[in-house]
Amino acid sequence: MKTIVSTVKGARDFYPQQMAIRNWLYHHITRVSRSYGYEEYDGPFLEKIELYAAKSGEELVKEQAFVFPDRGGELITLRPELTPSLARMVAQKQGELLYPLRWWSFGPFWRYEKPQKGRSREFFQWNIDLIGVDSPEADAELIAICADFFRAVGLAPDQVQVFVNDRQLMDAEFDRLGIPAELKKKALHLIDRREKMSPEAWKAYAAEEGFSDNMLAGLAELLEDKQTWKQSPRLTRVFEILKAAGAVDYVAYEPRIVRGLEYYTGVVFEAKEITKEGRSILGGGHYGNLVSDVGGDPLPGVGFAMGDMMIQVVLEKFGLLPAAGGTPAEILVTVFDESLSPESARLAADLRGAGLNVVTYPDAQKLPRQFKFADKIGVRFVLVVGPDEVMAGTATVKDLSERTQETVAREKVAEYIKTRLAG
Amino acid sequence: MKTIVSTVKGARDFYPQQMAIRNWLYHHITRVSRSYGYEEYDGPFLEKIELYAAKSGEELVKEQAFVFPDRGGELITLRPELTPSLARMVAQKQGELLYPLRWWSFGPFWRYEKPQKGRSREFFQWNIDLIGVDSPEADAELIAICADFFRAVGLAPDQVQVFVNDRQLMDAEFDRLGIPAELKKKALHLIDRREKMSPEAWKAYAAEEGFSDNMLAGLAELLEDKQTWKQSPRLTRVFEILKAAGAVDYVAYEPRIVRGLEYYTGVVFEAKEITKEGRSILGGGHYGNLVSDVGGDPLPGVGFAMGDMMIQVVLEKFGLLPAAGGTPAEILVTVFDESLSPESARLAADLRGAGLNVVTYPDAQKLPRQFKFADKIGVRFVLVVGPDEVMAGTATVKDLSERTQETVAREKVAEYIKTRLAG
Repeated sequence: MKTIVSTVKGARDFYPQQMAIRNWLYHHITRVSRSYGYEEYDGPFLEKIELYAAKSGEELVKEQAFVFPDRGGELITLRPELTPSLARMVAQKQGELLYPLRWWSFGPFWRYEKPQKGRSREFFQWNIDLIGVDSPEADAELIAICADFFRAVGLAPDQVQVFVNDRQLMDAEFDRLGIPAELKKKALHLIDRREKMSPEAWKAYAAEEGFSDNMLAGLAELLEDKQTWKQSPRLTRVFEILKAAGAVDYVAYEPRIVRGLEYYTGVVFEAKEITKEGRSILGGGHYGNLVSDVGGDPLPGVGFAMGDMMIQVVLEKFGLLPAAGGTPAEILVTVFDESLSPESARLAADLRGAGLNVVTYPDAQKLPRQFKFADKIGVRFVLVVGPDEVMAGTATVKDLSERTQETVAREKVAEYIKTRLAG
Repeated sequence: MKTIVSTVKGARDFYPQQMAIRNWLYHHITRVSRSYGYEEYDGPFLEKIELYAAKSGEELVKEQAFVFPDRGGELITLRPELTPSLARMVAQKQGELLYPLRWWSFGPFWRYEKPQKGRSREFFQWNIDLIGVDSPEADAELIAICADFFRAVGLAPDQVQVFVNDRQLMDAEFDRLGIPAELKKKALHLIDRREKMSPEAWKAYAAEEGFSDNMLAGLAELLEDKQTWKQSPRLTRVFEILKAAGAVDYVAYEPRIVRGLEYYTGVVFEAKEITKEGRSILGGGHYGNLVSDVGGDPLPGVGFAMGDMMIQVVLEKFGLLPAAGGTPAEILVTVFDESLSPESARLAADLRGAGLNVVTYPDAQKLPRQFKFADKIGVRFVLVVGPDEVMAGTATVKDLSERTQETVAREKVAEYIKTRLAG
């Protein structure tokens, strides 16, 4: 036997069982997005490299994107993220669109990373954005969407939390701590690094970057104080709205969350599992300027992105992944013998016409074998149309779960099965 | 203003309106596939080039695939078709899977072709296969699926037809016409070319390839005779089953259909619009051996593939594309003023909890502006929670389509709206 060609590293096969889980996620994402009135869209999967070059902070493209020349020599990128495509699409029709825009998407992305638990080179991502508005209501809406999604997939507030901060609050706090303007960006970096370094290394790094002991003590205190949000009118309003919306159990202020430094300008948030691993599930925030990098007029918004890999790791850990997959059919119609196979096809077509999902056995194998197949794939009903049934205008309906068997008039079979399914 | 970076040639933006059409197609594909008991699956979008090299007749990869080295130097292909991935996936688990397998998929593919009407470089394709069986019932099932799909999207039998042939019938007819074994493949090529050349050029080409005048006269007659299928026990059974299944109106025997020469071995079919353009919408057939090229044991099956572009051209031509798109929300909850925005959030959350889709206006603009927005995005209901309503525990519900306005108790709003939506 020849060797089977293997899959590309970091790419995944979706057998029906894995596909059912992807669809289950997509279903909940769709439900929640639509419940807030968001419209689904999608960008192309291939984009020109210039699109990413236009965006500042393009580490993704330089270091992680699949970039290659097409057969015409043009440099093509497999999209590593959706925001630049979204910006382009909005800029292209900036004058025609109706704001605020509510758009969401779920599709494939590619990054040349080291495959590991919760990370692959080809993955799916949910992107959702509310564009053309800058308000605490908008910030709260996106955070409430996270909470609703977690609730929908069965994750409780003691299992996941959306950690929220406000970059403008941090800016005001930096002023209070006497951190000069030229050190502010470094201060955000420093916060971002806090959990990735030992306290000693962190202090040494800070001193090297020019932070005084006083500033550092102030920063350390800021990171410990979970009440600072009360100084932020914006966060105060966001929490007030989230409370009214019944989402606040899922949300906490966390000064350590700063997110993408070049992009976000206001409220930022990141959802993590409440475990010692503390894996990050999604992240987003408010941006002041979505489209001017790609040629449009400045437009604020708020949005987040969630990959399909880490959420599955978290759901699996908490035993929340569904037992998905299996035939969608409720019924198998057997083929009594070759001459009667059109009768089976006729009955199956009638049942499909009535909205039922029906497998027809595809040849005239011995009946016990067909029954065995029905049992294995997990349909509930097995139907037989033999010479007696044809003569009498009936079908024999075997209910594998109730272990019953009845002869039912042909025109009543759909109704009979629907009643049993509903009961 | 800077220039907006353009899209990659042959790639498409899916604004909500286009996305709604893609989803409408996907919805019907899903419904029909499931009604026959098929399970959804997907392959990776990236595959190693060896996977395609393993398959004979690899013109697609050599001439049309996007192939590029990844950052590790390995040659990666953006999948131009699904069959090799399907073959690999089946071969990998050949011993564990339960036959016959019924699998379907809808996803993106890439081919470096000249973009034109009904053809792009990045497109979607429906693939559906019944694997592990060789029977007229199996052939008929896939053809009936085509017919059911056309019926579902509103295409009538006088607008589209599935043209069917049998490669084994052709083989027997070639014998009858005295075409020697070594010319049979060329004879199929000749049939395939019939409609792409003038009769004179076709005759000249045939003579050049070694066909006698007698053979050619026989072939020409074969291509005109629409009754030859009666010589094929297989096609006779296929038509008998399709008739019983109520699908035969969509199906016709057509000797000019031969399909992919290296791959198909039995019944083949192709659906076309019945117009002077006669565009091909989908194609498929029976194959004797899905997996042995990639390292598995021989396994027969039948399947077809349909791109998303040509079907849209055809649907549009017949005025059958849906008026898709628009907000999924039925309700807009206004924000009376800043202090009452939590009340709006609370009401919106309650309504979402009741299964309704609700947009909340994201800031406290003047109410007329919020009403205007509601009208523009097309929600039916606009809700107001002002100081009077808060005091009385009510909400004012304006029905934009019925032009009515009522004050409803807060806890009755969801029920009130659902009743109106149902009525």
